[in-house]
Amino acid sequence: MSADFGFSVIATDGRARRGRVRLAHGEIETPVFMPVGTRAAVKGLTHDQVTALDPAIILANTYHLHLRPGDALIGRAGGLHAFMGWERPILTDSGGYQVFSLTGQRTITEDGAAFRSHLDGSAHLLTPESVVDIQARLGSDVAMIFDECAPWPADRGVVEAAMERTLRWARRGRDRFLAVQAGAAPEVPRATPGQAQFGIIQGGTHLDLRDRSVAGTVALDFEAYAIGGLSVGEPVDLMYEVVGHTAAQLPADRPRYLMGTGMPDDLVECVARGIDMFDCVLPTRNARNGQALLRGGRIVIKQARYKDDPRPLDEACPCPACAGGYSRAYLRHLFIAGEILVLRLLSVHNLTLYGALVRGAREAIAKGEYERFAREWLEAPPPDA
Amino acid sequence: MSADFGFSVIATDGRARRGRVRLAHGEIETPVFMPVGTRAAVKGLTHDQVTALDPAIILANTYHLHLRPGDALIGRAGGLHAFMGWERPILTDSGGYQVFSLTGQRTITEDGAAFRSHLDGSAHLLTPESVVDIQARLGSDVAMIFDECAPWPADRGVVEAAMERTLRWARRGRDRFLAVQAGAAPEVPRATPGQAQFGIIQGGTHLDLRDRSVAGTVALDFEAYAIGGLSVGEPVDLMYEVVGHTAAQLPADRPRYLMGTGMPDDLVECVARGIDMFDCVLPTRNARNGQALLRGGRIVIKQARYKDDPRPLDEACPCPACAGGYSRAYLRHLFIAGEILVLRLLSVHNLTLYGALVRGAREAIAKGEYERFAREWLEAPPPDA
Repeated sequence: MSADFGFSVIATDGRARRGRVRLAHGEIETPVFMPVGTRAAVKGLTHDQVTALDPAIILANTYHLHLRPGDALIGRAGGLHAFMGWERPILTDSGGYQVFSLTGQRTITEDGAAFRSHLDGSAHLLTPESVVDIQARLGSDVAMIFDECAPWPADRGVVEAAMERTLRWARRGRDRFLAVQAGAAPEVPRATPGQAQFGIIQGGTHLDLRDRSVAGTVALDFEAYAIGGLSVGEPVDLMYEVVGHTAAQLPADRPRYLMGTGMPDDLVECVARGIDMFDCVLPTRNARNGQALLRGGRIVIKQARYKDDPRPLDEACPCPACAGGYSRAYLRHLFIAGEILVLRLLSVHNLTLYGALVRGAREAIAKGEYERFAREWLEAPPPDA
Repeated sequence: MSADFGFSVIATDGRARRGRVRLAHGEIETPVFMPVGTRAAVKGLTHDQVTALDPAIILANTYHLHLRPGDALIGRAGGLHAFMGWERPILTDSGGYQVFSLTGQRTITEDGAAFRSHLDGSAHLLTPESVVDIQARLGSDVAMIFDECAPWPADRGVVEAAMERTLRWARRGRDRFLAVQAGAAPEVPRATPGQAQFGIIQGGTHLDLRDRSVAGTVALDFEAYAIGGLSVGEPVDLMYEVVGHTAAQLPADRPRYLMGTGMPDDLVECVARGIDMFDCVLPTRNARNGQALLRGGRIVIKQARYKDDPRPLDEACPCPACAGGYSRAYLRHLFIAGEILVLRLLSVHNLTLYGALVRGAREAIAKGEYERFAREWLEAPPPDA
């Protein structure tokens, strides 16, 4: 295990955990929500604004950055941190999810995934080894293995084959990672010595496949483990069941990261099932669609009902949108007029809600009051009730 | 003259003046540059960011706000200040310039300008009186009269007719303004008691027409006077000549506002000719086109030469983009990737430059060093020399 990586559980409450993860660029408190900065920017937010949110770790997308501006360029700049001017931890995904979404434009073989760029049609190949090298050049604090994510629904055979391939790729990726970290691949500049690598559990909604995936992945001794292949269309109760089952089998002394989930209620439910780390595009994507997320529901800002509404989105919210004197009527005007300011204000608001959620969860776990905290979130009345 | 309005000249240096304008929502120091917030938002910037810039007065467009969300709605909210949550001064234009730009979609008569909305084709009529009423509902600190701006080039007869009509409209607009302010038009809610109204000098590049326009407009005793009808395509030296000639004839005890100008060098030249107030879309529009303005030139951020450039836009600039660790390479990546963050960073940078310019001009005038200040600006070497 990387010497720069560490995890300690500070408190538990039922299966919920409060912890601390040590990464090359600093410590993060868990449960944590990581805003998504697909192309090395959390859409519309300055670094100061992201830092002001809780937490101060972001996710960036290997697929997008590999294509543009390219990991070679970012490597020349000294890695993502130097390139962006961002000093806190960064997690990069492996690009697998994006490549598998390019239906019709990619070919999966045992070697890896050949695909054409969505930008210019150029041909590319990602392999379990090359995504390690790309992420070494990017210099993220956490690199993810290259995995194959089965669609939902899919035949059990398809899901099983993707899980088995993910296991074989995990071994190749881990081997390459250890070689690069040991300096045995001098052609690959390591922008962040002390990078950690997380394995990914696949197996769809089949609990026995999840079991086999856990056993095979944990045997490779990654710094931590992620649950992938969920929030791809399956019913939410089934997702909770798979999360609860899988998290319980993962080592208690390593962080557990649920990839790509979800709505605030999903975070509340999955913290209760032992998840420590989350990422999701929802708070920023919904903002761009004009949705402000609130406890108990959402505000669709273009609706005529807000035309003359002088209230902030949420009177109890401390974010720059709510505390800054921006009324629902004004935000609606900005959205309808196409003024980009509203996208930023809604993004900051939504991310503030996620920050408040995980911070509240941490405090509740420390006090042994997580069940009450979760109930209050899940039973909050709708915004305009 | 409105009791809330005042102007004092603090220092002069040649024809350049340093002054202070008292408006209903506070004082502003001149020379001043007003960022343009067409639709009640300076594109992409929060109010805090605008306030952090110098100065803290913005311009909003009567034409756009009349059409959407409508001055009636803004009036119900208590005026633009309450609607936006912006507490400092606002100047609204009259909508004239926008309407006259709608070539083929508007009809000018002595009554006013009939036009179709660029948004939905609906029919509208703006008159010298109605723009007073609209601006009273908007509650700006400064309302502009409805003027007719001749195109450039145009026959002298066309320019003369537009100037004469502007004078007749100015009298109607002033009468209506005084009636509304005196409470004689109770059907028009006044969101900002103490609003001021500025007259507009027309006459194109014909100095004798400018003279007649000054004489006729000053006779109506507006709180202050603007020079309109410039920066519409005429050579810049001709513009400077007209500005110098016209400003010299305007009353020394009232602010002089040059509408819609311009590049930083234009501000430097026109302050030297006695102008106190400026507005222009250039700093924010050029930002959206990927241009960072610097002393001595500009950076076109998409150029390949910045691909690996780790420097900030301007090492001497204190703006959040330059001081915040954003390299040219990263800004270029954001621009090419279409990330809206870059638009905001470039806008803040450009507006910071304009703020530094007018602040520097004020200090130089107070010290009697304006000529040296102007020479340093105009002779600054290009950014990458």
